Amino acid sequence: MPVLTLAELQARLGGTLSGDASVLIRGVASLEQAGADRIGFLVNAKKYLPQARASRAGALIVPESLEDALPQPCLRVPNPHAAFAQAAALLHPEPELPSGIDAGAIVADAAEIHRDARIGPGVVIGAGARIGARSVLHAACVIGPGAQIGEDCLLHPRVTVQHGCVIGNRVILHPGCVIGGDGFGLAWESDSEGGHWSKVPQVGRTILEDDVEIGANTSIDRGALDDTVIEQGAKLDNLIQIAHNCRVGRHTAIAACVGIAGSTRIGAYCQIGGAAMIIGHLNICDRVTVSAGTFVAKDIREPGVYTSVQPLMKHEDWKHNAAHLRHLDALVKRVKSLEAKLKEN
Amino acid sequence: MPVLTLAELQARLGGTLSGDASVLIRGVASLEQAGADRIGFLVNAKKYLPQARASRAGALIVPESLEDALPQPCLRVPNPHAAFAQAAALLHPEPELPSGIDAGAIVADAAEIHRDARIGPGVVIGAGARIGARSVLHAACVIGPGAQIGEDCLLHPRVTVQHGCVIGNRVILHPGCVIGGDGFGLAWESDSEGGHWSKVPQVGRTILEDDVEIGANTSIDRGALDDTVIEQGAKLDNLIQIAHNCRVGRHTAIAACVGIAGSTRIGAYCQIGGAAMIIGHLNICDRVTVSAGTFVAKDIREPGVYTSVQPLMKHEDWKHNAAHLRHLDALVKRVKSLEAKLKEN
Amino acid sequence: MPVLTLAELQARLGGTLSGDASVLIRGVASLEQAGADRIGFLVNAKKYLPQARASRAGALIVPESLEDALPQPCLRVPNPHAAFAQAAALLHPEPELPSGIDAGAIVADAAEIHRDARIGPGVVIGAGARIGARSVLHAACVIGPGAQIGEDCLLHPRVTVQHGCVIGNRVILHPGCVIGGDGFGLAWESDSEGGHWSKVPQVGRTILEDDVEIGANTSIDRGALDDTVIEQGAKLDNLIQIAHNCRVGRHTAIAACVGIAGSTRIGAYCQIGGAAMIIGHLNICDRVTVSAGTFVAKDIREPGVYTSVQPLMKHEDWKHNAAHLRHLDALVKRVKSLEAKLKEN
Repeated sequence: MPVLTLAELQARLGGTLSGDASVLIRGVASLEQAGADRIGFLVNAKKYLPQARASRAGALIVPESLEDALPQPCLRVPNPHAAFAQAAALLHPEPELPSGIDAGAIVADAAEIHRDARIGPGVVIGAGARIGARSVLHAACVIGPGAQIGEDCLLHPRVTVQHGCVIGNRVILHPGCVIGGDGFGLAWESDSEGGHWSKVPQVGRTILEDDVEIGANTSIDRGALDDTVIEQGAKLDNLIQIAHNCRVGRHTAIAACVGIAGSTRIGAYCQIGGAAMIIGHLNICDRVTVSAGTFVAKDIREPGVYTSVQPLMKHEDWKHNAAHLRHLDALVKRVKSLEAKLKEN
Repeated sequence: MPVLTLAELQARLGGTLSGDASVLIRGVASLEQAGADRIGFLVNAKKYLPQARASRAGALIVPESLEDALPQPCLRVPNPHAAFAQAAALLHPEPELPSGIDAGAIVADAAEIHRDARIGPGVVIGAGARIGARSVLHAACVIGPGAQIGEDCLLHPRVTVQHGCVIGNRVILHPGCVIGGDGFGLAWESDSEGGHWSKVPQVGRTILEDDVEIGANTSIDRGALDDTVIEQGAKLDNLIQIAHNCRVGRHTAIAACVGIAGSTRIGAYCQIGGAAMIIGHLNICDRVTVSAGTFVAKDIREPGVYTSVQPLMKHEDWKHNAAHLRHLDALVKRVKSLEAKLKEN
Repeated sequence: MPVLTLAELQARLGGTLSGDASVLIRGVASLEQAGADRIGFLVNAKKYLPQARASRAGALIVPESLEDALPQPCLRVPNPHAAFAQAAALLHPEPELPSGIDAGAIVADAAEIHRDARIGPGVVIGAGARIGARSVLHAACVIGPGAQIGEDCLLHPRVTVQHGCVIGNRVILHPGCVIGGDGFGLAWESDSEGGHWSKVPQVGRTILEDDVEIGANTSIDRGALDDTVIEQGAKLDNLIQIAHNCRVGRHTAIAACVGIAGSTRIGAYCQIGGAAMIIGHLNICDRVTVSAGTFVAKDIREPGVYTSVQPLMKHEDWKHNAAHLRHLDALVKRVKSLEAKLKEN
C-alpha cells in the first residue's frame, strides 16, 4: 500500500497545512479508530469537534472555515468529505488486473477491445462489442453482442451487460448487476383455455451515461421500444429495479431496494430513499426527495420532501390502532354527524 | 436484421390489409419514434387515434374493429398488441449462439445435451443434467447435477439452476436468477450459551412448468420437503423472492420486487403488483389482483382488487398526520364518548 | 442415496426407540407425502397428532414428552425438528465436487488453497486469497485478492467475495450473493454546473463470523472505514441488503427482502421479518422481533415485537379509508373542538 507524507497529500489535494508536514500517512480511518499513521476528517465541527480533538489520528482533514486549533497536523480544505474521498483513493488503491486480456477470458473475434483495457479471467465478450481505453472488466463479466463500454469504466466481477446496450465513460458497475435485461412486457391473448400471456419482445436498449454507478444485484431493464436511460452522474445502490423505458435524471441518487416501474421519469438532483417504490408512467420533477420506505403513486410536480410510511409501534398497540384504519371512513362520518348534532343543539 | 414487406408480415401475422402492401418494414417502434421503415401499433383508439394519425410510421397494426381510416398502410387484426409482439420477434431476432457446445463450456461426462441445444462459453453443466432440443444456454450459466431443462428454453447469461430442479419447455430465465436455492429452513436448538439455529436441509425441488418466464436476479427456493412449483404460463419479473413450498398458479403475473413467504399458494390468473409482500402459509384464490406496494397478511378467498398502501404526502403534512396513527384507538374512544354524551344530552 | 435402518438413525441422532427398529429409511418427507421408506416428524402434537396417526411414513421422529402411542415405529427425542434436520442431512447428501481444484478453475499463483478444499469449474481466485480445509467452492464463484475463506465452508455457484473480506468457518453462501461490494458512499461537490456526487472509496471489509448463512442474491457491503460484521450464527435469507458499517448480532435471523441502511446495529437473537426496512444509524437491542413488512425509523431499546403495517382492504374500501389519512390531523382537531364545545354545554 502507498505511504505519503502529509505534505505529499497536500500536493495532491490542495488546501493549507498546519503542524508537522512530514508525518507519514498509510491510510484513512474514522476519528475513533485512527492510529498515528492514519488521516481522519472532520465535517460537522459543532457536533464532532471533541471527537476530533481526542482522535489519535496522525493528521486530520478539516474545513478551511474551522477557527479552532487542533492538536493534530491539519489540512484545511473547502470540502473535507470530498478531499477525504480523494485521500482514500490515493492511499487504498483497489487490486488491479494485469494489463491485456486474461488467457481465461473468451472474447469473440469480432469484438473490439482497446489495447489499454484490462479483461479478467472468465469474462465473455460477444461479437461486435466494444471496450474502451483503460476500462477494467473483472472476472466472469458477460458482455453481450454489440454492447459498448466506454473509457475508464470499472466492472466488478459477474456483471452482465446485455446485447446492444451502451455504457458511457467512467461508469462503475458492481457485482451481479444486470444491465439491459428484458422489460416485463406481456400481451394478454384469449384462447380456448381461458387465455395466456404472450411475450412482447423488448427491442430498446439500456443506456448508462458518463459517471453513472450501479450497485450489486441491481437490474436495469432495456426499453420495450425506446431506450431506458440513466443520465450522467446518477448513482444507484444495490438491489434496485429500474423497469423498461424509465429515465433517471442527472446526479440523482437512489438508495438500495428501490423499485421504479415502467416508463416513469425521475428528474435531476433527486434523492430517492431506500426501499421507496414508485409506480409506472409517473413524472417526478427535479430536486425531489422521497423518504425511505415511501410509496409514490402519483406525479410530483414541486421540489420538496415526500413521505408515506407508517410509524413503528409495539405490536400490541399496532393491533389496536391498525384495526381502525379499516373503518376510518366510518369514523369521519361519525365525527361529521356529531358536528351536525352539536350545531342543532 | 430482417426486412419484410407489409404483405410478408401479413402472411405471418394474419389480418386484413389496407394501403400499400409493398412498404418495407425493418423494425417496430412507438407511434412517436417510428420512421418510414417502422411499424407501430394502436390499441386504445379513443385515446391514441390522434397520435396514430400523426405518426410517421411506415405502417400500423390496428384493431379490426377500428372504423376510422388512417393515412398509413394498416394491418387490421383482432389483437394488435399480440400481433405487434409477433412482428417484433420477427423483425428483431435476438443474437443467437452458434449451434453445439462452445469450447469454453464445461459439461460433465454424464450430462445429456440434445444435439440441437446451444451451450455458450463458460457454461457449467453437472453430472446427470439433461438439456432438451433447441434450448439455448448463454454464457456462464450453471446447471446443477441432475437438473432437467426442457425443449426450446432460453437461459440468458449467469442463470443458476440448482441440482435436481425441473424446468419445462419454452421457459425463459433472465440473468442472475437462481432456481432452486435452499429455502430458509432453520430449527432452534438450545445450548449452554443461549441457543443457536440449525440448518434444516431442503430436500424438495423447484419445478417451473411450461412457458414460465423468470426475471433478472429473481430467486425461487427449492421446497423444504415437497416441491416449490411455478405453474404453466406464469410470468415473474425481476428481483422477486419466492420462498420454499410456494405454488404460483397458471398464467399469474407477478411484477418486480415482490416477496412471497414460505408455503403460500397463489391462484391462477392473478396479478401481483410490484413490491407487494405476501406472508407465509396463505391461500390466495384465482383471479385476485394485489395492488403494488400492498402487504398481504391473510387469506384472500374472493376474486377482486386488494390494497393496503399509505397515500403520499408532503413530509410536513405526513409528520402531523402520521403521529395520530399511534393514537387512533384513543381517538375512536374519544368519538365514542362524545356520541354517548350527546345521547345523554 | 443412502439407506439407513431406524436403528442406524437412532445410533446417529440419539433418542429412544419404539416399534420395528429394522425398517429401512431412504429419505425424509412431510406427514402427508411420506411413504413406507420415509421418516416424518411431529412437533405440535396438539395440532398435528391426527395427521401423524394417519401418516403412511415408515417411521416418525416425535417429542420425548409425547404420551400417546403411535402406529408407526417412533424415535423419541428432546428436539424433533433439530433431529429431523440431522436425519435429512444424512439421508439427502448434496451433490459433491470431486476433491482438488477443477481443471477449469483459474487460481492465482499466490493464492493458498488447502489441499482438502474442493474448487469447482469456472471458479476464479485472486492473489493472496486463502481457502481453508474442506471448504467447497462451486462453479463460477469469484474470490477477490486477499480474501479469506475458513474451514468447512460451502459456497454455492456464482458467489462473489470481494478483495480482503474475511469468511469464518462453516459459513454457507448461496448463489448470486455478493459479499464485500462497495457501500453507497458519496460526497457532494459543487461545480459550475450545479454539483455532482464524488465516490468515497470504501476501505473497510465485510466479515462473516463462524456459522453464518447468507441467501441467494443477498448483498452485504464492505465498510466505508471500519468493517461490516455479521456475527456468529446469524442467518440471512435471500435478496437482503446490508449496507456499509452495519453489525448484525449473534444468532439473529433475517427473512428475505429486508433492507438495512448504513451503520445500523442489530442485536443478538433478533428476528427480522420479511421485507422489513430499517433506516441507518439505528440501534436495535437484543431479542427484538420486527414483524414482516415493518418500517423501522427509530432505535428500539426494549425486547418485544414491533410492527407498522397497513391492514389489507378491498380496493374500494381502501380508497375511502386511505383518503382520510391525509386529513387525520384535521380530524383530531375536529374531535378536540367537539370535546371543548360539549364541555361548554
